[in-house]
Amino acid sequence: MVVYSKKITIKTKKKLDFVRITDLVRQAVKESGVQDGIVLVNPMHVTSSVYINDNEQGLIDDFKEFLEKLAPRDFNYHHHLTGEDNGFSHLWRTIMGREVVVSVQNFELELGRWEEIFYAEFDGERSKNILIKVLGE
Amino acid sequence: MVVYSKKITIKTKKKLDFVRITDLVRQAVKESGVQDGIVLVNPMHVTSSVYINDNEQGLIDDFKEFLEKLAPRDFNYHHHLTGEDNGFSHLWRTIMGREVVVSVQNFELELGRWEEIFYAEFDGERSKNILIKVLGE
Amino acid sequence: MVVYSKKITIKTKKKLDFVRITDLVRQAVKESGVQDGIVLVNPMHVTSSVYINDNEQGLIDDFKEFLEKLAPRDFNYHHHLTGEDNGFSHLWRTIMGREVVVSVQNFELELGRWEEIFYAEFDGERSKNILIKVLGE
Repeated sequence: MVVYSKKITIKTKKKLDFVRITDLVRQAVKESGVQDGIVLVNPMHVTSSVYINDNEQGLIDDFKEFLEKLAPRDFNYHHHLTGEDNGFSHLWRTIMGREVVVSVQNFELELGRWEEIFYAEFDGERSKNILIKVLGE
Repeated sequence: MVVYSKKITIKTKKKLDFVRITDLVRQAVKESGVQDGIVLVNPMHVTSSVYINDNEQGLIDDFKEFLEKLAPRDFNYHHHLTGEDNGFSHLWRTIMGREVVVSVQNFELELGRWEEIFYAEFDGERSKNILIKVLGE
Repeated sequence: MVVYSKKITIKTKKKLDFVRITDLVRQAVKESGVQDGIVLVNPMHVTSSVYINDNEQGLIDDFKEFLEKLAPRDFNYHHHLTGEDNGFSHLWRTIMGREVVVSVQNFELELGRWEEIFYAEFDGERSKNILIKVLGE
């Protein structure tokens, strides 16, 4: 059994950003030497998401409008009583999900034709860690 | 350590459909020979979901109305500029989630009394693959 | 390879409740003896969630208002034709998610600074089981 861990750091220039990380995860899978198994990918933060969907800018714009409709940025959240101003970030991350678990086959990520792994940042402009964990043989 | 992979294909007759796949996953777990471990189940497509909830038709109707309220089908999504007409399908899949990870114990899926595994199709009438990956010993 | 299973039981006094379970999961990881691997945590019920976010009461209040807005408690869900009255519980659990998978490193949960594991109960006042499954070496 092989267990391999890697952390990557992302610092987006914008408060909100969607970054395709499929190749970074693919690279970690290669480094692990795992032929057959799974890989877990998650941010180590509570205001961002790792999710899988289409790599298409229009869809990313749709995600932003959809999230804004469900949990508006400009709203006086209870969480703001702590001095924070990122209540929406916590809710957006909840909608988009925290983590993905993906199959590894023949030393490669086993993704469908349109499946791309994204890091969605909802409170950026600072360094954030993404954890990649590969298990298998 | 045992790692077992299987793909199953589902082609729904309707554009929107909810298909109970608990027994198909149970069968794959049996085939794997894994006594104690986990199983990952995910569609290899970005317009459908694998999720766990109650096998009850009223609830499935509730899901449809809930999803329609959050992301209406009849809306001019940015994603449609690509020529696609399934913007809502990508959003619905996001709400319902991509994958489930379930415990395997004594060669069996370890599910609660009302936990049933579903494949939710939001862009059907064509063949879709579901990946099942069993890990354990 | 080590595979370790544990179930914990929680009975909330309120119908709706959010219970921090990080330390219970940490304890199970210790008991497993796994040095490097992953842990899966999920309720064995379809009206509750295990999720990861900030341990902050204001945010928990925000979650409740957000969920109420997306799927009101006081609504005549199709699911109620079965005699149940917890349609919203199934939808809230869908929004918050079913399970989390977390890295285990050096015999410890590998969580970010603000990542806390929560059990969110949407149909409480009775005993519910949470499954914890640790895999690794």
